[in-house]
Amino acid sequence: MTLDALINSLKDIETITDPHQVAKLSQDYHTFSPVLVPKLAGKVGDIVVRPAHEQEVIQVAAICAAHRVPVTVRGAGTGNYGQCVPLHGGVILDTTKLQKILWVKPGVARVETGVKLAALDKKAREIGWEMRMEPSTYRTATIGGFVAGGSGGIGSVQYGLLGDRGNLLALRVVTLESEPRVIELRGDDVQKVNHAWGINGIITEVEVPLGPAYPWAEVIVTFDNFITAAQFGKALANADGMIKKLVTIFASPIPQYFHPLHSYIPQGTHPAFLILAETSLESLPGLVQQYGGKITYQKPAEEVGKGLNLAEFTWNHTTLHARNVDNSITYLQSIIPANQDLQLVADLYHYFGDEVMIHLEFIRVNGAVVPAALQLVRYSTEERLNEIIRYHEAKGVLIANPHTYIIEDGGRKVIDPEQLKFKEMVDPYGLMNPGKSKVLEFKAQKRS
Amino acid sequence: MTLDALINSLKDIETITDPHQVAKLSQDYHTFSPVLVPKLAGKVGDIVVRPAHEQEVIQVAAICAAHRVPVTVRGAGTGNYGQCVPLHGGVILDTTKLQKILWVKPGVARVETGVKLAALDKKAREIGWEMRMEPSTYRTATIGGFVAGGSGGIGSVQYGLLGDRGNLLALRVVTLESEPRVIELRGDDVQKVNHAWGINGIITEVEVPLGPAYPWAEVIVTFDNFITAAQFGKALANADGMIKKLVTIFASPIPQYFHPLHSYIPQGTHPAFLILAETSLESLPGLVQQYGGKITYQKPAEEVGKGLNLAEFTWNHTTLHARNVDNSITYLQSIIPANQDLQLVADLYHYFGDEVMIHLEFIRVNGAVVPAALQLVRYSTEERLNEIIRYHEAKGVLIANPHTYIIEDGGRKVIDPEQLKFKEMVDPYGLMNPGKSKVLEFKAQKRS
Repeated sequence: MTLDALINSLKDIETITDPHQVAKLSQDYHTFSPVLVPKLAGKVGDIVVRPAHEQEVIQVAAICAAHRVPVTVRGAGTGNYGQCVPLHGGVILDTTKLQKILWVKPGVARVETGVKLAALDKKAREIGWEMRMEPSTYRTATIGGFVAGGSGGIGSVQYGLLGDRGNLLALRVVTLESEPRVIELRGDDVQKVNHAWGINGIITEVEVPLGPAYPWAEVIVTFDNFITAAQFGKALANADGMIKKLVTIFASPIPQYFHPLHSYIPQGTHPAFLILAETSLESLPGLVQQYGGKITYQKPAEEVGKGLNLAEFTWNHTTLHARNVDNSITYLQSIIPANQDLQLVADLYHYFGDEVMIHLEFIRVNGAVVPAALQLVRYSTEERLNEIIRYHEAKGVLIANPHTYIIEDGGRKVIDPEQLKFKEMVDPYGLMNPGKSKVLEFKAQKRS
Repeated sequence: MTLDALINSLKDIETITDPHQVAKLSQDYHTFSPVLVPKLAGKVGDIVVRPAHEQEVIQVAAICAAHRVPVTVRGAGTGNYGQCVPLHGGVILDTTKLQKILWVKPGVARVETGVKLAALDKKAREIGWEMRMEPSTYRTATIGGFVAGGSGGIGSVQYGLLGDRGNLLALRVVTLESEPRVIELRGDDVQKVNHAWGINGIITEVEVPLGPAYPWAEVIVTFDNFITAAQFGKALANADGMIKKLVTIFASPIPQYFHPLHSYIPQGTHPAFLILAETSLESLPGLVQQYGGKITYQKPAEEVGKGLNLAEFTWNHTTLHARNVDNSITYLQSIIPANQDLQLVADLYHYFGDEVMIHLEFIRVNGAVVPAALQLVRYSTEERLNEIIRYHEAKGVLIANPHTYIIEDGGRKVIDPEQLKFKEMVDPYGLMNPGKSKVLEFKAQKRS
């Protein structure tokens, strides 16, 4: 099918063919990885298609299926694994025009896939609710992109990860068939599409539970010793009576990359960045004192939205700030096993020194508080990076390797058999985001 | 000081001297314990005084201090340790007229000590909030009584125990001095009075954080195997994405004591009683299926307040229902250590059989889900009861022994040194609830 024929058949649906624009919309933030950059260089779609509602999505799906055109779905492109970089050209299906907030009720909302997380928050807060968890890119990221390519973030210290039972209520997907179907997945069935990198149908609507929108305060606490800071973070994350949505610990010298915050973080100290319900604020000084910390910055809830926003220095925004200062820096994503957590963190801290600067994000995993880490790595070679990864893995750390565009090499290690079964049904021609999965490539080769 | 002189000096403050009334107001629910009943038999106050506001509390305190009259403070008398049974007569200070709700704001409320928990809930729910945790006696229990003599309950699976940092924001207490002072305790200082059984000043006001008032659904799930039921309870309690305020597991034959629920619990099955946010309900069947359970009863949130109320079959209401059928039954209160929990539960279940019927309440302790237990015990002799307790303790179970009226023999084992220091300041004559503490009795004897 020629590009012109495709455009003609799309009729009123918005298309973009300007090569600069198409190249831009074929990108995400895999540029954080010096390993991925060369591997994904030059990978661009042939055309960007921007449906405005589900009916247009169905039209695009039908045409692509009939003509066997690859389809790579994207939200805002804030992922870091090259999730929405098309390996085999074809159509980039940009979902950002699907931005209706369908309804918001106490504790639950349903929205179109392209709704920005911040937009849903704004609407939900009118009635006292908000997203349970969000990546640090919540201002631009879409909810469909978060479901397809994300896993957790700010709020995960309370609610765990997006894939945990109860954190995602329903998904509506369009299949990539000549006569596309629209399928509503509810309950455990949402896992057939959650975190599937857009290979399992085109998400058009998302139903999520909401969390109460506490008045949130932001706090920086500094410590002279990194391990003490980490212990404080763990104790706070475990304090069941204190409501928090962020407990982040940075080893010095990471804060040097946060220019606007220098006056709150004395050089050489190790800060905790916290977001706490204002009702829990009065209980903080007792805990801080117990670990010998100092509260150096406090922003009350009424100033939220004004001035500095601590959340935007955490999770993968940390890496962004560091790379803005020194673009030779890259990162890891990992979960430290709960049974040995802080001793192992101490060992890694001393072993690698400044080569691997530790950035902890406390989260809940199956009911227990564990330190996730997005370590900043001073990159030298791919070999050394792999050596660092292997060292961590040998110690029992789960590395969700952000230096691969293969699903199985990232956090999940395998694709859920349920997802594969669903894949065969909704994408019989293997057109969705092709090339991102080992097992699917293997199957495709066997067929051909 | 004669009773008449006391009454005269109290002027307009309500007093009760009718012996039947005084005897009734000298009681609590220690009658659940066949060991406590004979020990506390005949222990009554000389008079009940019912101040209507703090100024009257101050007057009572001044007179009692000046004349060295013992003072035993009570709320609704729903405790089970004889906390408000006066060992040395004197004044029963009944706080139930202090029932002003001072203010309720999003996430926090301040009330007078005698406010019933259910009354605060009703008010707070008007703006979308409610108590974070409550005993099963919430319809009658007062908040001051809960603070002085309680420790947790329905909601503790989410927020931990009342004593956990952040679950109690401030207390206002009147000292027992000839010129009483009014002291406001905030932050960690609230621990000087929390769970002190009324020996550390008279609480007049309480400030508590609130939790979001989710639309709550009630569910019964039955299992053929008790340990499977317990494993299900643990998995649900650990499911970070599912919002719950009650996860209770009963070993058969406990449900035989719940007459109104018989049709939902097939004989010989082991039920889970759950209170879940309605948004989490859709995620329940997947988990239930995983453990081979059956959902036999479901009450949607809109029917809350109508018909059966599952919460009132849990925590110590379980014991109440059992004793209504068979008053030879008594109980234990315990916490199973987290590291071995369900294996140990299985061992105890098989070892004691029907003599100790296991009733689990999952709660959070320092960030981790652990099974608390309020086992029903078929009572034979005090010796056998002690043997049962010792067996549990030898296995590492913490027994908060409800068969003693001595603070140190209950759940806390020792009185916090901070509480003792505060005691000396606020009750210099040792008049408050005398006889309930080993260390204080010892000190009193040394002085005399």
